[in-house]
Amino acid sequence: MVDQQARTGGDKRPTEIPAIRWEEPPEGPVLVLLDQTRLPAEEVELVCTDAAALVEAIRSLAVRGAPLLGIAGAYGVALAAARGFDVAEAARALEEARPTAVNLSVGVRRARAAHQAELARTGDPTAAAVAALAAARALHQEDAEASARMAAHGLALLDELLSGGGHRILTHCNTGSLVSGGEGTAFAVALAAHRAGRLRRLWVDETRPLLQGARLTAYEAARSGMAYTLLTDNAAGSLFAAGEVDAVLIGADRIAADGSVANKVGSYPLAVLARYHHVPFIVVAPLTTVDPGTPDGASIEIEQRPGFEVTEVAAPQAAGAGGGIPMAPLGTQAYNPAFDVTPPELVTAIVTEEGVVSPVTAEALAELCARAPAGAPQASS
Amino acid sequence: MVDQQARTGGDKRPTEIPAIRWEEPPEGPVLVLLDQTRLPAEEVELVCTDAAALVEAIRSLAVRGAPLLGIAGAYGVALAAARGFDVAEAARALEEARPTAVNLSVGVRRARAAHQAELARTGDPTAAAVAALAAARALHQEDAEASARMAAHGLALLDELLSGGGHRILTHCNTGSLVSGGEGTAFAVALAAHRAGRLRRLWVDETRPLLQGARLTAYEAARSGMAYTLLTDNAAGSLFAAGEVDAVLIGADRIAADGSVANKVGSYPLAVLARYHHVPFIVVAPLTTVDPGTPDGASIEIEQRPGFEVTEVAAPQAAGAGGGIPMAPLGTQAYNPAFDVTPPELVTAIVTEEGVVSPVTAEALAELCARAPAGAPQASS
Repeated sequence: MVDQQARTGGDKRPTEIPAIRWEEPPEGPVLVLLDQTRLPAEEVELVCTDAAALVEAIRSLAVRGAPLLGIAGAYGVALAAARGFDVAEAARALEEARPTAVNLSVGVRRARAAHQAELARTGDPTAAAVAALAAARALHQEDAEASARMAAHGLALLDELLSGGGHRILTHCNTGSLVSGGEGTAFAVALAAHRAGRLRRLWVDETRPLLQGARLTAYEAARSGMAYTLLTDNAAGSLFAAGEVDAVLIGADRIAADGSVANKVGSYPLAVLARYHHVPFIVVAPLTTVDPGTPDGASIEIEQRPGFEVTEVAAPQAAGAGGGIPMAPLGTQAYNPAFDVTPPELVTAIVTEEGVVSPVTAEALAELCARAPAGAPQASS
Repeated sequence: MVDQQARTGGDKRPTEIPAIRWEEPPEGPVLVLLDQTRLPAEEVELVCTDAAALVEAIRSLAVRGAPLLGIAGAYGVALAAARGFDVAEAARALEEARPTAVNLSVGVRRARAAHQAELARTGDPTAAAVAALAAARALHQEDAEASARMAAHGLALLDELLSGGGHRILTHCNTGSLVSGGEGTAFAVALAAHRAGRLRRLWVDETRPLLQGARLTAYEAARSGMAYTLLTDNAAGSLFAAGEVDAVLIGADRIAADGSVANKVGSYPLAVLARYHHVPFIVVAPLTTVDPGTPDGASIEIEQRPGFEVTEVAAPQAAGAGGGIPMAPLGTQAYNPAFDVTPPELVTAIVTEEGVVSPVTAEALAELCARAPAGAPQASS
């Protein structure tokens, strides 16, 4: 079951509502989600009292972003256990909610394994439920800590590269607390710079076609009190030409063994512009994003998304064929890759929770990965 | 007075309605415009029976694009004369409809001068009205001829640069018959390649924020029967990286004496990508676009447009603060330059009605300008 609680009206500034939290009111434990489909117009919370409600929230993209999905999945198992539902069935439903989301599955299995182990050891369902919740909380905590470490490493790198201070950072897509148990990846670095008083401006690419920059990053920047300015992805070139960008900070969906970075479409053009203008291009991602099984950029398969994301403009409460407003002539075919690939030679540095790789080489990346503990979820935009 | 005639429903393919035409039905002469604010959803014609209706159509952007505005202005004077209205008053109202549109003023003055000269010579208002109409028709014809010559020069250049045939052309913004008395600038070259059987694909950048590519260029490509594919401006990088772009063709709003090209924002990033991938970047524009009074790119003043064009998505019949649907948090500030500037070293060639400049140098450009006859209107995206 799911309840909705609207916290603020459309005419107020964003507040400090976390993307996900576990609560234990007298009527029983609940998982509370910030409904990301309603942002930035409305801050509505979804209160899930069972795994089925969470499955629906995952399917509708009310909760999204790879690390956050892993955390949500783990809490979902804990919720089923705490409420006395069939945990195996809940785990299966949660894993199937978005079958391609690896982190979701990892999170679900971690909480389920903790539940099973405790049940086998004690035979006590209450103790097993407590163990599942502890596993979910550990995952949540680990992700938050990884964010914090990436932020610290990233800020140190910025300060080293940009001796002048007053950083003007360009970012793309959404990489903050809406996709993470902590403060995110690239956005967390910008936020650390802001808190240190060294962020002069965050330039926010709107990120067509789904406008994650305009809808979500602008929302996160506003609620953090950052000096930010939105722009069409097109206008980044003018900013570079005017000398208004000191560094580009982006996240990553997957990093190949050679250091090629797959990220939201539009990242690669920024890398080319950054190189042409001698501006650092910095990728911020947890080490689990590095996939040693993918040797190079050419091996990364790029998801092609439906054309209606381009031919229609998604709008809250609109209802075209794809749920949006048609912009192009009917029958127009669209090329709509979800991601693009930036080769390592265009990447100034990769910032991870375990440290910074710069210059980006297969050897340096492999060395850093060898240092990392296992378990943290994969980042995504 | 203005009448509306809907020619096709929203579910039909675009047809061959010209952007502007003069008609003389029994009830008196009229100027018929294709209402560009309704494209691509609806093909609606506006029938103007006096200059006041045309002024309203110009103000509402039903008719737009620099060369086309010049032609419309000239016909507007002819219409006032033919219908027996005060020609001086009509000319003044037309010139003031969009004060910054230089071509509009040039077109109005040309027809008005023809009217005045004939009236002075013969004292016959009917003969003077005929002269004004002849001036408008001459301007219309000259613009169409300039388009045709640019198309021929541009196609010859493509064939020379791309020996393989099967051209895959990327274009940005809207440069076809909707902004011209003929078939336009960059789009006219692609169309010539299509008619010659040598266009393999037209890649159409959607062109945020106002989506002229998605709304208008896709419409023109569809009604010309071209093989075209729409993409977000972001996705162009992926196309270059995949080797799917053989040449970039764009128009120009202004060309400085040194060959710097001001055009719709997003052109410069394409030029940088084209250079990085060794793809020709070709600018197509009439010689009147060259402004000898502007020495270089830094001297070109860039219009900053309202932020709501970015923070809201313009949608037909929508009604936000800026007439659109809000996407970003309220209070979000946007950076929204209308144009960007591409330096001559990134421009492979400038194609004009008098020939091609390549490599682009101040000397070569000045030499070509010296050859040109005066009078043709300025191009614009």
